[in-house]
Amino acid sequence: MPTFALGHNQYGKAETRIVRVTRGPGGDGLTDLNVSVALRGDLAASHLTGDNSAVLPTDTQKNTVYAFAREHGIDDIESFATRLARHFVGSQPSIHGARVTVEQYPWQPVDGAHTFRRDGGEVRTATVHHDAARTQVVSGITGLVLLKTTDSEFHGFVKDAYTTLPETRDRILATSVNATWRHDGAVRDDYATARAALLDAFAGTYSLALQQTLYAMGAAVLAACPGVVEVKLSLPNRHHFLVDLAPFGLDNPNEVYYAADRPYGLIEGTVRRDDDVAEEVVWSF
Amino acid sequence: MPTFALGHNQYGKAETRIVRVTRGPGGDGLTDLNVSVALRGDLAASHLTGDNSAVLPTDTQKNTVYAFAREHGIDDIESFATRLARHFVGSQPSIHGARVTVEQYPWQPVDGAHTFRRDGGEVRTATVHHDAARTQVVSGITGLVLLKTTDSEFHGFVKDAYTTLPETRDRILATSVNATWRHDGAVRDDYATARAALLDAFAGTYSLALQQTLYAMGAAVLAACPGVVEVKLSLPNRHHFLVDLAPFGLDNPNEVYYAADRPYGLIEGTVRRDDDVAEEVVWSF
Amino acid sequence: MPTFALGHNQYGKAETRIVRVTRGPGGDGLTDLNVSVALRGDLAASHLTGDNSAVLPTDTQKNTVYAFAREHGIDDIESFATRLARHFVGSQPSIHGARVTVEQYPWQPVDGAHTFRRDGGEVRTATVHHDAARTQVVSGITGLVLLKTTDSEFHGFVKDAYTTLPETRDRILATSVNATWRHDGAVRDDYATARAALLDAFAGTYSLALQQTLYAMGAAVLAACPGVVEVKLSLPNRHHFLVDLAPFGLDNPNEVYYAADRPYGLIEGTVRRDDDVAEEVVWSF
Amino acid sequence: MPTFALGHNQYGKAETRIVRVTRGPGGDGLTDLNVSVALRGDLAASHLTGDNSAVLPTDTQKNTVYAFAREHGIDDIESFATRLARHFVGSQPSIHGARVTVEQYPWQPVDGAHTFRRDGGEVRTATVHHDAARTQVVSGITGLVLLKTTDSEFHGFVKDAYTTLPETRDRILATSVNATWRHDGAVRDDYATARAALLDAFAGTYSLALQQTLYAMGAAVLAACPGVVEVKLSLPNRHHFLVDLAPFGLDNPNEVYYAADRPYGLIEGTVRRDDDVAEEVVWSF
Repeated sequence: MPTFALGHNQYGKAETRIVRVTRGPGGDGLTDLNVSVALRGDLAASHLTGDNSAVLPTDTQKNTVYAFAREHGIDDIESFATRLARHFVGSQPSIHGARVTVEQYPWQPVDGAHTFRRDGGEVRTATVHHDAARTQVVSGITGLVLLKTTDSEFHGFVKDAYTTLPETRDRILATSVNATWRHDGAVRDDYATARAALLDAFAGTYSLALQQTLYAMGAAVLAACPGVVEVKLSLPNRHHFLVDLAPFGLDNPNEVYYAADRPYGLIEGTVRRDDDVAEEVVWSF
Repeated sequence: MPTFALGHNQYGKAETRIVRVTRGPGGDGLTDLNVSVALRGDLAASHLTGDNSAVLPTDTQKNTVYAFAREHGIDDIESFATRLARHFVGSQPSIHGARVTVEQYPWQPVDGAHTFRRDGGEVRTATVHHDAARTQVVSGITGLVLLKTTDSEFHGFVKDAYTTLPETRDRILATSVNATWRHDGAVRDDYATARAALLDAFAGTYSLALQQTLYAMGAAVLAACPGVVEVKLSLPNRHHFLVDLAPFGLDNPNEVYYAADRPYGLIEGTVRRDDDVAEEVVWSF
Repeated sequence: MPTFALGHNQYGKAETRIVRVTRGPGGDGLTDLNVSVALRGDLAASHLTGDNSAVLPTDTQKNTVYAFAREHGIDDIESFATRLARHFVGSQPSIHGARVTVEQYPWQPVDGAHTFRRDGGEVRTATVHHDAARTQVVSGITGLVLLKTTDSEFHGFVKDAYTTLPETRDRILATSVNATWRHDGAVRDDYATARAALLDAFAGTYSLALQQTLYAMGAAVLAACPGVVEVKLSLPNRHHFLVDLAPFGLDNPNEVYYAADRPYGLIEGTVRRDDDVAEEVVWSF
Repeated sequence: MPTFALGHNQYGKAETRIVRVTRGPGGDGLTDLNVSVALRGDLAASHLTGDNSAVLPTDTQKNTVYAFAREHGIDDIESFATRLARHFVGSQPSIHGARVTVEQYPWQPVDGAHTFRRDGGEVRTATVHHDAARTQVVSGITGLVLLKTTDSEFHGFVKDAYTTLPETRDRILATSVNATWRHDGAVRDDYATARAALLDAFAGTYSLALQQTLYAMGAAVLAACPGVVEVKLSLPNRHHFLVDLAPFGLDNPNEVYYAADRPYGLIEGTVRRDDDVAEEVVWSF
């Protein structure tokens, strides 16, 4: 077998599910997380010869997540992820970089005491990349499903030989918001502010294109959160097609729609505080 | 090929996705449904010879769902399902029975005008069986995820040669509620009442077994909803295991848990108004 | 709180994932199962007062699955499920009935020695109901996706005011087969025979309706498997719509199709050896 | 609202499901694809003012996929994706770059004529990035689930204060292979060769770490496919834990395992022909 070069590589424990209960006279608190760790470093030997002397087991990473929840508690997920990332890089000479991703599932108190109801749907996220050069904190939300019944148009687009879509002056606009926003370095808990900005911008924008709504949503987060330098949005266009009821002798004055599954438009874009924002570090695979 | 007997059979259009918007000066309304139809009747010829002269196409059933939403509107899903079921049986001599199942996805108004947010998680359901003998209406809820941080014990159980589970006087109790409640005939919209009863009973029951909580939840619905004769509950026991932190020199005073995926306990039971309740009609496959 | 009656109830451990390896000089064997247990019996006290003295913990049921795999091995899943069901009823006075459901995931040997490849898609199933009166064994297959490019018509159906579907003399017919077949009592491993019969009948039937194909598939299993008394089939009609390419100046001679997700037809039916077949016992919730 | 900068953005139609049938005397052919398009270009106006004069509708992209399948056929998915990507960039002045991703679902002929069986599990993939500077073709496979019953060890790893994992000299090694391999420019259909190399390397490597197996798999593809310059692998470590049967008086000589869901290790790495390989273009969001 010829020899080839080992390129980027990383490893870690994915999807450690942790629930932490804080108990107090004023009612319990509940934190429900899914934590994924990825580490980079001097890991060539493990790949080339199976020498694992630089490998901190993924099982250990899982244990660390649980232990840190007890030792340090869990405040906001950005801080929890940062603490873990710094620990792995700081405690292991062979580990030079860590990425910790956290999903937080929201729960609502039911009785103010011990009972909670899972508030399904949207999930809060945080991703921290940490190495000797930087600690980059990216917050986010996923699965926030929004719909406008009107105030959405789509026309004036390119028509080529394969275009059959009619122009429309009134349509349903619906999406499932996947948004991330990158902080300028300091760890801030501005989730509620950013979420409200996303909602307000979606609701308040008279939309001529989902792209226009996307930009408005990104700009709203930047305007509301001074510490955020960049917002990324991935917005599936959940098509709702007006059903043709004419064959049944019925009109359909924008009342009855078919909610389609696939295909769907996918509109993605980035809004930045200014053109000088440094590139985001992303460990892609 | 020898001849065999054709037994129970049914057919229909499943998962017709319909969104209806009502528009008014006080803000729009949004109804988001997934409708499935199954029909029974004189359908042997279609099976035995491919003679479809008694078959109302499933595509027609889909069209009917859309047309009825425009012609009759959609009030509660029990009424909508009943109207559809009666139509198929009443309009087609070859169709003797209909089952219509509806899932309703909840949305919350965002701005009181045109914007809505999907309230993920729980789904309201209704299933109507209609034939010449009866119209049976069953309402339900699925995906209502609840958790109690304490007030749950489990002990005094059978120990056999394969038992290793320790007894516990304090554990997390969590489940995803799948409940259905059968009406005595009349169509009532008591969803909010039944849902509140389920929540209150889960929160208010000091639990010695998930079975005990199940019974309390069923009884609570019967007590709160006079028109309901039977409640069925299917409650997965979403295990949360206390993590052993002793290897790391840490205690764990009911604080840090591992949320397991599989396996899980599954506790199912029926609570009836009295022993004379007629059997539920279920078209099982 | 008024008192209500406790109706049917059952409980057990669902989705115990077990992989068993048999090791031998001619290469290893691999059995990959998902086992779910449900028990019925004298369980009222657990529901009414939280007295668990009749409750065999679901954790114990899980342990039993693993221990039995070591003690008795796993031959065919029908036998494994039967052994477990008999054990629970036979060893616990409070348990009067057991249902054990097994899904088996198929793997293919890669090198005849130690390596296997998961043969995705179809899953073999078995469900055994056991109580003092009977041991009922039902085998099955799920997720067997089949498609015919032609030899499928659909016409001569009912047209009402909501019918727009055109008749067709040539369409794609596709489905994901969910089939179960009930044995006359004796446990037989006739999975390969039944699966081949289903495939042959689907391929060999010139179809005027999916109902006709369904009947042919059920009859084929009965003809091929003497010990089978009843076959149930649930066949989603996975619609493939011919794309209209005329706007682009192109014809489409049954070549390019859109594979739709929802809605879909759902055709379900039973074929029995004769009209005297006893009713299948189903514990429905 | 202050003004912010628009960064990277892209849009397109995702998940267009297309099935193409070729008909011939020697039996039909079936191609089953899921096609996703993303375009980049002069799209600022759509974001900033809702001026869509540079926007080719996503609906048109969908139509183009269907029309091209008829006009040009579908040979291998790399070529089909390249043809589409070149078309969008070449025909629209406002579009400067295109990414076309295709998933191909495999089917097996059943009767050599018209019937096919979906060969579930693994999916073939291709992603083409095309702009004025380059056409980059990346092929891949996903969902190829492999398992070795032995010849896998894991020891010699770092132990820190959070390490409890015992060393092992014999374990099950299982993964679901997600692999992509990048071509040097020319479009080649080397799927079967690359897949066989992955299988052989997984089976033939005595593994001291999943990282070692990963490197061997990547190197095997490079050795087998001269036109490939880089292989990326993302390998979840599907843990199979030996069940402790000692409480039941049973040994467990590497026979009965629990297949865990979460958490799981995730091992990712790149193997390159040499260190001079240019960076892969990835449009990440």
